[in-house]
Formats: sequence, C-alpha cells, structure tokens
Amino acid sequence: MQRRAFLIACSSGAVALAHSFSAFAQSAGTLVEDLVAGNRILAMEGVLDAMGHISVRHSTRQDRFLLARSMAPELVTAADILEYDLDGNAIDARDRTSYLERFIHSEIYRVRPDVRAIVHCHTASLIPFADSDVPLRAMYHMAAFVAEGVPVFDIRAAAGLTDLLVRDAALGKALAKSLGQKPAALMRGHGAVVVAGSIPNVVGRSIYLDVNAKAQAQAIALGGKITYVGADEAKLRMSDTNEYSRAWDLWKRKVSR
Amino acid sequence: MQRRAFLIACSSGAVALAHSFSAFAQSAGTLVEDLVAGNRILAMEGVLDAMGHISVRHSTRQDRFLLARSMAPELVTAADILEYDLDGNAIDARDRTSYLERFIHSEIYRVRPDVRAIVHCHTASLIPFADSDVPLRAMYHMAAFVAEGVPVFDIRAAAGLTDLLVRDAALGKALAKSLGQKPAALMRGHGAVVVAGSIPNVVGRSIYLDVNAKAQAQAIALGGKITYVGADEAKLRMSDTNEYSRAWDLWKRKVSR
Amino acid sequence: MQRRAFLIACSSGAVALAHSFSAFAQSAGTLVEDLVAGNRILAMEGVLDAMGHISVRHSTRQDRFLLARSMAPELVTAADILEYDLDGNAIDARDRTSYLERFIHSEIYRVRPDVRAIVHCHTASLIPFADSDVPLRAMYHMAAFVAEGVPVFDIRAAAGLTDLLVRDAALGKALAKSLGQKPAALMRGHGAVVVAGSIPNVVGRSIYLDVNAKAQAQAIALGGKITYVGADEAKLRMSDTNEYSRAWDLWKRKVSR
Amino acid sequence: MQRRAFLIACSSGAVALAHSFSAFAQSAGTLVEDLVAGNRILAMEGVLDAMGHISVRHSTRQDRFLLARSMAPELVTAADILEYDLDGNAIDARDRTSYLERFIHSEIYRVRPDVRAIVHCHTASLIPFADSDVPLRAMYHMAAFVAEGVPVFDIRAAAGLTDLLVRDAALGKALAKSLGQKPAALMRGHGAVVVAGSIPNVVGRSIYLDVNAKAQAQAIALGGKITYVGADEAKLRMSDTNEYSRAWDLWKRKVSR
Repeated sequence: MQRRAFLIACSSGAVALAHSFSAFAQSAGTLVEDLVAGNRILAMEGVLDAMGHISVRHSTRQDRFLLARSMAPELVTAADILEYDLDGNAIDARDRTSYLERFIHSEIYRVRPDVRAIVHCHTASLIPFADSDVPLRAMYHMAAFVAEGVPVFDIRAAAGLTDLLVRDAALGKALAKSLGQKPAALMRGHGAVVVAGSIPNVVGRSIYLDVNAKAQAQAIALGGKITYVGADEAKLRMSDTNEYSRAWDLWKRKVSR
Repeated sequence: MQRRAFLIACSSGAVALAHSFSAFAQSAGTLVEDLVAGNRILAMEGVLDAMGHISVRHSTRQDRFLLARSMAPELVTAADILEYDLDGNAIDARDRTSYLERFIHSEIYRVRPDVRAIVHCHTASLIPFADSDVPLRAMYHMAAFVAEGVPVFDIRAAAGLTDLLVRDAALGKALAKSLGQKPAALMRGHGAVVVAGSIPNVVGRSIYLDVNAKAQAQAIALGGKITYVGADEAKLRMSDTNEYSRAWDLWKRKVSR
Repeated sequence: MQRRAFLIACSSGAVALAHSFSAFAQSAGTLVEDLVAGNRILAMEGVLDAMGHISVRHSTRQDRFLLARSMAPELVTAADILEYDLDGNAIDARDRTSYLERFIHSEIYRVRPDVRAIVHCHTASLIPFADSDVPLRAMYHMAAFVAEGVPVFDIRAAAGLTDLLVRDAALGKALAKSLGQKPAALMRGHGAVVVAGSIPNVVGRSIYLDVNAKAQAQAIALGGKITYVGADEAKLRMSDTNEYSRAWDLWKRKVSR
Repeated sequence: MQRRAFLIACSSGAVALAHSFSAFAQSAGTLVEDLVAGNRILAMEGVLDAMGHISVRHSTRQDRFLLARSMAPELVTAADILEYDLDGNAIDARDRTSYLERFIHSEIYRVRPDVRAIVHCHTASLIPFADSDVPLRAMYHMAAFVAEGVPVFDIRAAAGLTDLLVRDAALGKALAKSLGQKPAALMRGHGAVVVAGSIPNVVGRSIYLDVNAKAQAQAIALGGKITYVGADEAKLRMSDTNEYSRAWDLWKRKVSR
C-alpha cells in the first residue's frame, strides 16, 4: 500500500466514522489511524497472522471501544473499524461481521479502567509457555512489564469443555478475572492477551513479549543459572510511559510506505 | 507475477482443462485456480520448497484427482495441472512429466472418500518428529486436528529396503494404511502427508502443522509439564469446517499480487 | 532509500557537519558516511531494532566522538550525526535530542584509547547469555575475538537498584570498568556493548557476535563435548585487522541501494 | 539484477573467458553461467554470507578449476571467474586477487578425480556440529548423502597452532586427507567443505546439509529415540545423480530475476 493511499484511506475512513459516532472527539482521527497502523504493524512483525486482533477504547466514552470487522489484520483500513459497547454489540455494523472473540476486549475494558488498548494474539513463541507450567519471566528492559507476572488462563478450569474460543461474555469475564491487574495473560491451547494504556504501548508490549519469550526459552536451554529482571527494576523502568515511542514511530513509518 | 497475469493464467488454463476433461463441472475453474493458489501459498509459507505437491479430488468424479505436472510448486500455473485416475495414470499428459510420488495421492483418494485435498511435504520442522519416537501433539486451536493423532509411516517396516520414495501403488497403499482415518501422517526419513476436505483446509492444516511442530519442540525444551489440547476440545473445534477461511483469503490475495 | 538519495544525503550532511565542526579532518566525510552506513547495516542485519546505537571517535580529536541524535538507527542520515565531548555533551545540538545512554560511549572512549568505534545493542540472541552464568565462547574464526572473553556487567552489583539504563557518567564508568580491555561486554537484563578500532570492525564484530551466540546455544543443546576456538588461535586470527573488509563492502553496498 | 542484465553479464563474461583459456570446451559458457548462479544461489539461501566460495573443475582439463576472484559470492559475475591450476595458481589473474583459501579447492581436486564441484562455507547451522563431538547424521532423503559420514577436520590436530585458515597447500592436503572419499567434511572452529559431481549437486548438498543440521539439532532436543536414514537407504537414494535438478532449475530462475 502506498503511503499516500494509506493516509487517504485513514482520513476518509475517519470522516465516515466521525459521522456515524454519536460523540466523537477531536482525537478520533488519530486514534483510528493508529488502530489501523497497529493492525498492520502487528502483522508485519509476525505477532499476528491472519488471526488475532487489536482494539482501542473510545477517546471520550469509557463504555465504548473500536475494533476492526472480522478480517485479517494486515488488510484493515479505517473504513473497517467498528465501534462496540461493553456487551460486545457493534453500534453501527451495517452488515459487517464482528470477530467471534470480541468479548475478550469488552470484558477487559469493563473491569480495567486503566486499560485503553488490547491485543489478542496467537504468537508462536507464546504457545509453548501457554501450554507449560514454566512461567514467563522478564529477560530485559524492553519487556520489563513481564516482571509484573503473566498468568495463564486455562479455559477448561474456568468453563469446562469448550472449543477453546472466547465465544461469549461469560468466557470473556473469566479471562478478565485471570488477567486481574496484570499487563498480559497467556491462554492455554490458544494464545495471549496483552493490555496497555495506549496503542503504541500495547503494540510494543506484544512485540517485545514475543522477543522475550524466545530469549527466555533460549536462556533455559543454556542450562545455567538465570538472573531475571527484578520486580523492583521493572517498576522503575515502567515509570516511563512512552517507552515504545521511538519504536512506534519507526513501525508506523514502515507500514505507511 | 502480477495479479492480472495470475488471473488470466488461471482462467485460460481452466478453459484448456475444461476442453480436455470429459466431464467438467461448473466449479472446475475455481478448483484449478485454488489448486494453483495452494501450490504458491505453500511455497510462500515455506511448507514446500522446490519439492512436494498438493492435489485436489475432481469436483464431479470421485475416481479422478488434479495435480500439477512434475515441477516446483511456486511456478505452477493452471496450464500445468493434470488429471489423474486412481491408479496414478495421467489422463491427458501430452508429454508432460508426472511426479514420481503421485501414488501418495492416488492411494489415499482410493481409500478415503472423505478426503478431497492432499499435501505431501518435506517441511523442516516435521522431520525431527518423523525420525523421533516423540509423537506430535496439539499445541493450540489453530492445529487442533493434531489431537486426532499423527502416525509415523516407516517405509522400511512396510516394504523393507527402499530409497525412501513412494514410487509405486504398493508403497502408496502402505502409506494410506498407516494414515488410516487420521488427518496427517509423518513419513520417517522423508516428510509428511496431510489430508482434508478442501484445498483451503489442507493448506491451513499444512501451515499450522509446521507452526505446531515448532511450538511443541520449544515447549519440550522448556522442561516443564505440558498440557496439550484435549481430544474433546479438538473435536469441538474441528466442527468448524471453515476454520481456515479467513487465512485462506489472505494467503490467496498475497500470491495473487 | 535509493542509492542516489543515500549518497546525496551523506554528502550534503557531511558538508553541514564540516561547517559546524571546529576542526574537521579530511576523512570526516568518509567517517560520517560510514557511521550512517553502520547504523543502517546493523538495522538491516537485525542487530539493532528501533533502539541501540553506534558511534565513532572523531578523526582528529581524541576527546570527541560522533553519534546520531536520538532516533531509530535505520532512519539515520548524515544530517542526524552530532558531535560529543567525553562528558557526553553535544557540541552543537541545535534542538536535536541526544540518546539517554550516550554515556556508554563517552566513558568507554575516555578509558580505552585503542577504541575508535562502539555499538550498543539489545540483540535477542545475546540476552540469554547476558542473563545467564554460561559465558560466551568463540565458536569460529569469524568471531575469534570472543575468545578474549566477554564479561557480564550487572548494573545492580555496580549501582544497586536502577531502571537498568546507563543514564549518567557514573553508570557509564561502571560499565567501562566491567568491559576492561575486552572487545565486548554483556549487560544483564539489557544487552551488550561491542568495541573495535574502526566502524567496519565494530559492525562486523556485532554481527558475528550474534551468529556466534546462536551457534553456541545450539552446540550446547546438542549435549556433546564442545571444542571452542583457543585463545592462541584467536590471537593469531585477530592479527588481521581488516578481517571484516569484504563483508563491510557488501553490507555497505546493500544499504546504499 | 535484472534477468537480462544477468544473461548479458554471463554471456559476455563467458566470451572473455573463452578467449583467455587455452583450451575451452563448448560447454564452458554453461559452466561459467552455472558457477555464477551457484555463487548467487548459495548467498540467496543463506549458506554463504560475504565469505565462502564455490568452484568447478574445468570441463576438459582435469588439472584446472574455475573460482571467482576474492569477493562476496552474491556479487560474482562471469567476468570475475578465474582459472586455477592444482597448485592454486591463477592462470591469468590480471591484477585480480585470489581467495586466500583456494587451496581447499586445489588439493581436493588433486586427490578426488570424481569431484567436479566444491563449496567452502561457514553456514551457522554447521558450526555447532563442527565444534562438537556429536556427529552429523542423515535426517531425510534430501540429505541422504550425509549417511556416508561427515568427518570433522581439526586443523590443530593436523598442523598445530594456526589462525584456523587453510592458507597453503599443506593445510589443503591435510583437509583433503580428512575428507577422504566422503561427500563433506566439517572444519572445527571454521565451517565445512562440500563436494559433488556437478555444480547443481554441490549446491543442493550444501543447502540441504544446512536444513539437515537444523533438523538433527531439533530432533536431539526432543529427547526421544531417533531413527536416522540408513546407509543402505541412502546408497539407493544417491543412485539418482540428478536428485537436485528440479530445485536447481527453481534456484537458478530466482537468481536470474
């Protein structure tokens, strides 16, 4: 996609959204543009393949969030972004299909007012940890948030026999409960959910969670004693709330080419 | 290859095929186009290199299947697709060479009426499991079918000393027997065969079998206790017979660029 | 970036620098061009992502060094190169932001007169060794310098609780002390620093340190007895001070396309 | 490089060579074109980086071989190909520099009349095996030749303290002795040498030796019992002397684009 086409797609899509939203703040154009960029960045970096999704909380309404219609992330344009309420209902679907697992987003937004952006992914490096009793640990400053703990959500423990998908609000609530106040949770036999206070941060966390998982697996294979990032060190590091801004600028530039 | 050139190649090839086939259903054009796309997708995703093949059962004749002439999958066009009977004979070869191992396809189609598409591959991630007594297990919902079991075909156990290739109908029958009613079988010292009810599904299974093998190897290396996807969970998940449709649309779009 | 655009960017940037530098030697143009190329090569090869940096000592003033303003390495042009003194002060910043961790460079240049170029990186393959008590060892002649030893700098041992970043001169001094006379040091929970007598050599060392780490991890996983490159063999090999010149020419050509 | 430019470069280079060779057979043009393609294929596939080389025995003179001048393999054109005698002397160097390690080629051609093409590489996947006492074993039919055995050449055992490079005829002889009648040898702390009866076969063997090494390392990490390809199976498989022809056609087409 040409940069110009990307910008046009974003701005025209934002206009369409502005018309359909009841109360849409000035920053909505940027938010939609960033959500489109986030979709494409996560695909470019291999965190998402044809599946998985990224959402952002509405800029002015705490009880709404934005999420693409059901489609492959790397193809998302602004015109594909829908608005949802916290029950997972699309406000103005106009025949556009919703992701089956949108309840992952709605139920986390409901109970985590601090969360403004969510990624649900099936990143290959995370699956071994999602299925194992070896916990993810923070390997370096770029993934310091891992030191806060990444619980594993076992859908069978929460809801008995399922097809592993978070198909309804009850399953979404169970996942949100497992997540608690943590920055991410693994989902046994499925993938992960990552949360943050902004699109750049949730994208950055998702990308570096992938790097961290690979590095940790490699460190374990070395067979020596491992010193992980301490919770105290991580806490200091995380006080920088723009930690992924330089990376975000680069990633956004790349998907805009 | 330009998208337009791809579409022209597909449609003109389909026309040529339509003329040469005795009874060719309306959906044949789509089937050939999908088979061409399947070849290119599997090459793009690294499941196939210069070797390996994908076939589809004829849309109206249960005793026929379509398979490219002997060539590298990523170069296949519609004009390269041949029709075969269940003895592995090309119907209208016109001097085009057949894959030596076409009997993998013919003998599985013979005994598995439910199978409509087959991939034979040498994917690097599968070779360690093909040579090992550690069985493949299902790591996540995208490869839930693995929970049905992936047997290993040891050609020496079936046929004594060979050059490891499935060169004739007898070896194809032995492989089909090892496969049984399963969705895939590993081939010791060689690779794998994957089967499904459609081209999108056999392509999806082949791609996620690769991801699953890498994830399982990584999980084992972590050294902890692993909880694999349960057979009951997998069964529920597999009731969705279009599970790879979103991915298929993306992959097809990519190889059509 | 087109090759022509790259060359223009380099030469015009060099002109601008020549004007702003008090004493700028004839080779400065080449030095800036090589520093720009080094930034892009390290990004191309995956040694640096959006973070990390490469610097070079000033061609005529031992107490000065050149380093890009705070930005992603793969976007650096000659106009982004700043000059610093050994206290980490930019000589002519003109509103351009400096890297927070520039003290890594300044304090090493201060105590290592033999060092003319420095890379600070977070390469994923190095993190497992940075966090582990398994030392890096030299696997082959391309990374023979590893045989001199690669110490681990643990910032907590040196300075107690920090956010893991080398934010000031005191932390830079502590890192330089850990490095000692070695060609590289790992940084626990963070990454690594690599030093050499020229830009091509520090780039070559950084790239092959990455390859070496992966190869060593793989060798350990094989479970057999490993014979590393001997210190005596490495010493002989390192007597070739242009060991990466052929690689440098290729890399530079690639980023100039 | 455009396909047309590639073909022109090849043919004009071949003409130049034809003039400078004392006795140059009709097939020389093809041989030079294939040697250029082999250089570029091995770089494209990651078997060679900026270092390493591929040679071919002269088509009519058993005591001569062709090898590029000292340069990065992916940049080689027909005009860069030199002719050498079995003492490693360039016949008509005209100021072009020779690879330091050309004695790897000359001494193997001297004692192995069956060998018509040689690759010397530092492929990362081979280094762990080159430094380990765990022997390479054949994982699948695409690398069946590994079943013949891949000895390890330890230059220290042969020649005491060196800088690890095969700098002269004596070291080349020692390597050739370690290789014996095998298809490949690993070089401790350095890389490997692969031999075959043709350029396509030596390129194919080099590429699949890389795949095989990765697959074997992965199989070992699984921790189960491994059944390698038997020597008897490999012997049958290797009776097909054109086993890599389909792959070669694809690779050559790719580097000619």
